[in-house]
Amino acid sequence: MYIRFEYKNKIKEGFLKDEKIALLDREMLAGGEPTSETVLVKDVTILAPCQPSKVVCVGLNYKDHAKEMNMEMPTEPLLFLKPSTSVIGDGEKIIAPPQSTRLDYEGELAIVIGQEAKNIDTKDSNKYIFGYSCANDFTARDLQLSDGQWARGKSFDTFCPIGPGIVKTINENDAEIELRVNGSLKQKSNLNQLIFNVDEIVSYISKQMTLLPGDIILTGTPHGVGTVVPGDTMTVSITGIGTLTNTLTQA
Amino acid sequence: MYIRFEYKNKIKEGFLKDEKIALLDREMLAGGEPTSETVLVKDVTILAPCQPSKVVCVGLNYKDHAKEMNMEMPTEPLLFLKPSTSVIGDGEKIIAPPQSTRLDYEGELAIVIGQEAKNIDTKDSNKYIFGYSCANDFTARDLQLSDGQWARGKSFDTFCPIGPGIVKTINENDAEIELRVNGSLKQKSNLNQLIFNVDEIVSYISKQMTLLPGDIILTGTPHGVGTVVPGDTMTVSITGIGTLTNTLTQA
Repeated sequence: MYIRFEYKNKIKEGFLKDEKIALLDREMLAGGEPTSETVLVKDVTILAPCQPSKVVCVGLNYKDHAKEMNMEMPTEPLLFLKPSTSVIGDGEKIIAPPQSTRLDYEGELAIVIGQEAKNIDTKDSNKYIFGYSCANDFTARDLQLSDGQWARGKSFDTFCPIGPGIVKTINENDAEIELRVNGSLKQKSNLNQLIFNVDEIVSYISKQMTLLPGDIILTGTPHGVGTVVPGDTMTVSITGIGTLTNTLTQA
Repeated sequence: MYIRFEYKNKIKEGFLKDEKIALLDREMLAGGEPTSETVLVKDVTILAPCQPSKVVCVGLNYKDHAKEMNMEMPTEPLLFLKPSTSVIGDGEKIIAPPQSTRLDYEGELAIVIGQEAKNIDTKDSNKYIFGYSCANDFTARDLQLSDGQWARGKSFDTFCPIGPGIVKTINENDAEIELRVNGSLKQKSNLNQLIFNVDEIVSYISKQMTLLPGDIILTGTPHGVGTVVPGDTMTVSITGIGTLTNTLTQA
C-alpha cells in the first residue's frame, strides 16, 4: 500500500508492507517504486495519501441503498464537490464545527486519479486510475439540508478523511465495504452493489471537467448513514485496502 | 493592475500600467513590487491572474435582483464551489460542452485572497484580501437545474473566466458592474447593491472552510442573467478594475 507520511519533519511517500515503509525512487504518481531504504511505521505520522486539486463526489450510487429508500435508480451520476482543504489522513481528528447540530458519517470507496483525464471512454478509464483508498464523506447534515446546495455542509476543514493508503487494484466484483462507530457496525455493503462502477464514474466525470493527477473521486455511500457526536471513532474498511480511522472532536 | 502572463514560453507576474508590464521583484501574493524591468503588453499572452486552489461562490447577493425576483433577502450567503480546472483568463475562449443546450453568463466581482484565512472576523477581513477582479460565473443552466446540485453545471473547464488583472482596492460604495453580450448591455448594477458586502463574505466563508492564498470568491451576480450561443462575446466591466472579455465557442 502506498502511503504519504511525515518523518523527522519531512513529508515523504513510501510503500508500506509488514510495518516497514520503503521509500520510493521518485514521486508516487510518477510511478515511484520502492527502494531498499526503509523506515518503521511506528516512527512516522500518516498523512492523507495524496493532495488532490479537487474531490469530486457521486451521490446515491448503491443498488441496495436505492432499493431500501424506494428511490428510482439514477440514469446519470449526481456530482458534487468537496474542496482540497477538507482532506485529512488516517488517524487525524475530524473537527465538529459549532454551527452544526447534526454530523453524519458516510463510508465510501475513493478513486485516486493517476494522470490528467479529459473526455475518457469507459473502456479506457483504467489507464487514468492510480489506485483506491477508503474515505469518509463527512457531512453537516443540517447545513446540507438547510442550504439545499450540499457544498457548505460537506466542505468544512477535516470533513474528507482519506486513507490509510492507496492500493493499485481492488476486486470490484466482490469487496466488502463497512463503516463502524466505536466498533459497532453501521454501514455494510459490497462494491458489487455500485450502480455506476468505477470505470463508468471516471469516464462520466472526465466528460464534465478535467481530472488532474492526485484528484480524488468519492463513489457514494451505502445504506446505514447516521449521526455521530464528539468522542465517537469511525472506521471505514474495504476488502483489499484496509481501514481508515478518525475520531470526531469538538472544535 | 497586477497580471499573470506568458512571455517567451514562460509564465510571469507583473504590474500593468500604460501598455507596459513591470516585472515583480517576487511573487505577487508574497507582496511583489514592480521593478524597472518591463515588457510590452502586446508581446504577452494574458493568463488568469492567479491560480486558486478553489473558487467559492455566493448565490443571490444583489438587493435590486432580489427585489426584482420578489425573493426574500437571504439571512446568510448561500455557497457553492467551482473547481480550479474551470478557471481561464481574459481573452481565452469559453468552450460549450455538447451536453448542454442552455449556457448563461453571470457577471460578478471576484475577491482574491492574499493569505490563509480561517475564522476571520468581519472587521479583519481586509487584511486577508489581496485584491479584486472581474469574473463570469458561466453556467450550463439546464444541467444546473436538472441536477438540482449546481456543481456540474458550473464546473466545466473554461466556465470561470477571471481578469483581466487584480487591483488592490475598489470603492464598494460606488462601483458600477455591467455585463455586455456583443456590446449590448445585459446586466447593470452597482457594488453598493451587494446584500453581503466583501468583508462579510470573506468572514463568513472563512468560518466554513480555510481560504488559501490565491483562492477566489465570486460575490454573486446582479439581475439580467441570460443566455449566449457560440460566437457571442461577453464583457464584464467593474469601475476601477477594467474589462474581462471572453467568447463562447463550440467544443
